[in-house]
Amino acid sequence: MSERKILTDYVYKMVASLVQAGVENVVVSPGSRSTPLAYAVASTKQVKMYRQVDERSAAFFALGLAKATTKPVVLLCTSGTAAANYFPAIVEASYARVPLIIITADRPHELREVGAPQAINQPNLYGSHVKWSVDFPLADGAEPTLPFIERHLARAVAIATSAPFGPVHINVPFREPLLIDLQQELPAVTFKHSRMGQLTPTRGDQQELSSIIQSTKRGFMIIGELALGTELSIVWEFVRQLKWPVIVESLSNMRTSVPEDCLPFIVTTYDAIMKSDDFKALVQPDTVIRIGAQPVSKFIMQFITKSRPNAYVIIDEDPMFRDATGVSTHFIHANVDQWLTELAITETAIEETYLVEWQKANQLASMLIEQYAEVEKDEGAIVSRLLKMIPDGSDIFVSSSMPVRDIDTFLLATPKDLRVFANRGTNGIDGVVSTAIGFSQGNNRESYLLIGDLAFLHDVNGLIASRYQECNLTIIVMNNDGGGIFSYLPQSTVEDHYEDLFGTPTALEFRDIAHMYDMDYVRVETISELSEKFSTCKNHSLRLVEIFTDRTENVNAHRGLWNRINAELKA
Amino acid sequence: MSERKILTDYVYKMVASLVQAGVENVVVSPGSRSTPLAYAVASTKQVKMYRQVDERSAAFFALGLAKATTKPVVLLCTSGTAAANYFPAIVEASYARVPLIIITADRPHELREVGAPQAINQPNLYGSHVKWSVDFPLADGAEPTLPFIERHLARAVAIATSAPFGPVHINVPFREPLLIDLQQELPAVTFKHSRMGQLTPTRGDQQELSSIIQSTKRGFMIIGELALGTELSIVWEFVRQLKWPVIVESLSNMRTSVPEDCLPFIVTTYDAIMKSDDFKALVQPDTVIRIGAQPVSKFIMQFITKSRPNAYVIIDEDPMFRDATGVSTHFIHANVDQWLTELAITETAIEETYLVEWQKANQLASMLIEQYAEVEKDEGAIVSRLLKMIPDGSDIFVSSSMPVRDIDTFLLATPKDLRVFANRGTNGIDGVVSTAIGFSQGNNRESYLLIGDLAFLHDVNGLIASRYQECNLTIIVMNNDGGGIFSYLPQSTVEDHYEDLFGTPTALEFRDIAHMYDMDYVRVETISELSEKFSTCKNHSLRLVEIFTDRTENVNAHRGLWNRINAELKA
Repeated sequence: MSERKILTDYVYKMVASLVQAGVENVVVSPGSRSTPLAYAVASTKQVKMYRQVDERSAAFFALGLAKATTKPVVLLCTSGTAAANYFPAIVEASYARVPLIIITADRPHELREVGAPQAINQPNLYGSHVKWSVDFPLADGAEPTLPFIERHLARAVAIATSAPFGPVHINVPFREPLLIDLQQELPAVTFKHSRMGQLTPTRGDQQELSSIIQSTKRGFMIIGELALGTELSIVWEFVRQLKWPVIVESLSNMRTSVPEDCLPFIVTTYDAIMKSDDFKALVQPDTVIRIGAQPVSKFIMQFITKSRPNAYVIIDEDPMFRDATGVSTHFIHANVDQWLTELAITETAIEETYLVEWQKANQLASMLIEQYAEVEKDEGAIVSRLLKMIPDGSDIFVSSSMPVRDIDTFLLATPKDLRVFANRGTNGIDGVVSTAIGFSQGNNRESYLLIGDLAFLHDVNGLIASRYQECNLTIIVMNNDGGGIFSYLPQSTVEDHYEDLFGTPTALEFRDIAHMYDMDYVRVETISELSEKFSTCKNHSLRLVEIFTDRTENVNAHRGLWNRINAELKA
Repeated sequence: MSERKILTDYVYKMVASLVQAGVENVVVSPGSRSTPLAYAVASTKQVKMYRQVDERSAAFFALGLAKATTKPVVLLCTSGTAAANYFPAIVEASYARVPLIIITADRPHELREVGAPQAINQPNLYGSHVKWSVDFPLADGAEPTLPFIERHLARAVAIATSAPFGPVHINVPFREPLLIDLQQELPAVTFKHSRMGQLTPTRGDQQELSSIIQSTKRGFMIIGELALGTELSIVWEFVRQLKWPVIVESLSNMRTSVPEDCLPFIVTTYDAIMKSDDFKALVQPDTVIRIGAQPVSKFIMQFITKSRPNAYVIIDEDPMFRDATGVSTHFIHANVDQWLTELAITETAIEETYLVEWQKANQLASMLIEQYAEVEKDEGAIVSRLLKMIPDGSDIFVSSSMPVRDIDTFLLATPKDLRVFANRGTNGIDGVVSTAIGFSQGNNRESYLLIGDLAFLHDVNGLIASRYQECNLTIIVMNNDGGGIFSYLPQSTVEDHYEDLFGTPTALEFRDIAHMYDMDYVRVETISELSEKFSTCKNHSLRLVEIFTDRTENVNAHRGLWNRINAELKA
């Protein structure tokens, strides 16, 4: 068989195996070494190919796409530092539990570590931040090769999509010449299925937790960002059964589309009310149950650490369960929705007054937050108003740093159909534009990105994707000229070097960027222009709304709100 | 002792140790966890602090600064994906042998792998791509701690600056509160010196190589990019003694400032003349000696592989010496300048006719290249003209992909004082803008960057550095709207999907970017405008010269040149 035929068979077998395993989307960055596989992907109608030149952004784009579709997404790049540029998104995918199949083209063995161009030590490139890394054989035409790669790709997808989801890495060497014959049809595959199991609780474990829950008089539940694909209706049913106060982080997507009969249990303002020592004294818990990631709010977590409940139960699909409080008492290894389905709560001992204390505080804080949005002019008020203006049926991607915190403060429980997403695996401000664009490609809902100026600038290359894919996303940049979050931290009290190290103002505005990328641009100087101008930017594919705010005003206004809530809770 | 005092002593001891070890430059990216060390750096007058918000760009900036100063540069960032963004530049520094001291702030042990925000598994984050990775103890006030960190930092710098140079990683956990007391003076250090040795040859090894050289009748030398800080005068002296044809890559910086008596030996046009089978048949070598990295030119390396010289000797400071030809016969482990100093060549057996064949071909090709520059209008002609227009005493940083190849083709031997630099460790198109800006900060020569549109776009965030540091750099973008290099490769013959996968045109122009960053902008539509417009952009700090070219015209013109040279060599 000719070299070319062997290589052709090899790469189409790869694509066929990925398709068989359920892969629908591939994000490709241009490069030479990946040529054979890139051609095979481009010529296969069963997969959709996306493109992005900047590999750092490409990987975040794939992350967003995987989040939106809840399916594994393949990344493909050439050899060398191209692969290293994937690293930040891989780390995020690892902690955020997102299935990425990273395929890096490599030089053959004789060109590794010998000073050949664009050749770096790629096997195990991502260390502990992928679930699996495998170095493929060359397309050598040997009999075992195709059956091997077929099963290894099935395995790769199975590993990436078994709980907890995460990234896997496949390093594929190609020897020159790199050309293949384009094929119309994919070859048959011999490996049929990976059928993935669910982590289900034992009967004994169920009884233990049921008994803890059913005897709890003072308890609350925390719902953080849930695993990709969690069935929310099951969680809502559990909330109904439980009848406890339920602290829902915005990223759980259980503050929105709230069923009416669940509304009484939903607490959204915990970050604000947990700043009140008086309130905390009233609601010391016996039991806390947490599902999903740890929430954004530091105050709720500190409350748990200090109150040392008799039982702090964490349900997580990873044996390396997440708990930074140091006071967890029970860990249950399960898929959350699987667990909640099997856990029947037939009675509850929760004290009515305990629930009422939470409800009263939450209502009070919610009211003060609503007032705030009408009176104040800072980023918090802007976020609050945006949440009203963004239409039903939309998705909002929020950046780390202040936007995710502002959403967490100002998004109150509502029947409105909004969904909120963020990169909270590692909370970086990197790759946010790309993740949001990738996310918006993966769903057919109206999409918004809320982001600060530094995070926008950090991943401005995310916009390159719009040159290769039609995009539909409104990017709302809160431009406070620098690192706003640091104003809330103790270092802001040190005058010397503060602006140099933390404020880091760039004095940049983004009209030129919008112009370069053919984006519709709307400039909002003050909150009073917001409603008028925001509505003018409809019907464009990629839009930039730049809103100018002031770091000092932001922090003062936020502190004013917290003080008011604190004072009212005291009274 | 108070926690604050302990933390203060710890971070200032770190800075004092780095200063003692010879560190002068620190590149800081903003973040919270790194606060104590960042304040210590900012308040220390013995180090210069540079800033860059995008950590990927920051690391390339540091790489450029280290290349220009030939001294180790410290990087400092916060925990989380910030550290992962350093990875591409670290990989480049590893293969390019550049001393970087990467300091990543980390959470304390109790906040690692527990779902705490911005906490990732940082020890050994960079795998095999750093020479050393160490996890520091907390500032705990224990007696062994300060002496330990002092010696470990001295070690880190010693490792980074021992041959072959490379990056090292120090992971430093900080526990809250993160505030220190600013100090005017650095504390005393108890560790005084790391005195680094030189790899010197044994007398027996010297004699063996001398005897090979002195008995060689047909031999040539290759000089690639040399180790940072190599004494060029020693290499020139060796060239004089040797009297062989010497193939000098542009990155060796031995095509420029060429001493008059060395000019007869210098061959610059090898990539073009090695395309001629007739010429290759004339110059089959018995011996080849190589110092420095493998050159950009594929043709010269293929010639060596095919001609299988009796001796192909590689002198390299790394026992994992670089040779992709597979025909090397001798490896000599030494610092190149050290070795050449000790190697006395008292006689030479080189055939006069062998040298003359090389000289004739080189003169012919050089003449045709000179003519080309006057007649053609493509990127090659533009590079050729730019090399004349850029003033004596300048440095040119060139991007990977086509610019480095065009410089290698069109830079002929000259007494003019130009220096050429590139990221050739892994030949990535990433981080080039940042490396050039960092490089330009580290020297006081006039600085130029020659770069394609995709590489410029890939690291457009390199320009953020200009918001924090005064910059002096002329960036020349060759905008051919996409990946020009692929037009020279076999895949360009496949019409289907070619533009999607390789051409990847963005249809972007960079006037808006120049405007956003307050850069002087010059737009050059055709080569005829070049000399007039290029001279109009003096006296500005950061300049963008955008030159529009055509991918098809570029490849056709280049092929025309190679054909002409080939035909003339035949005749």
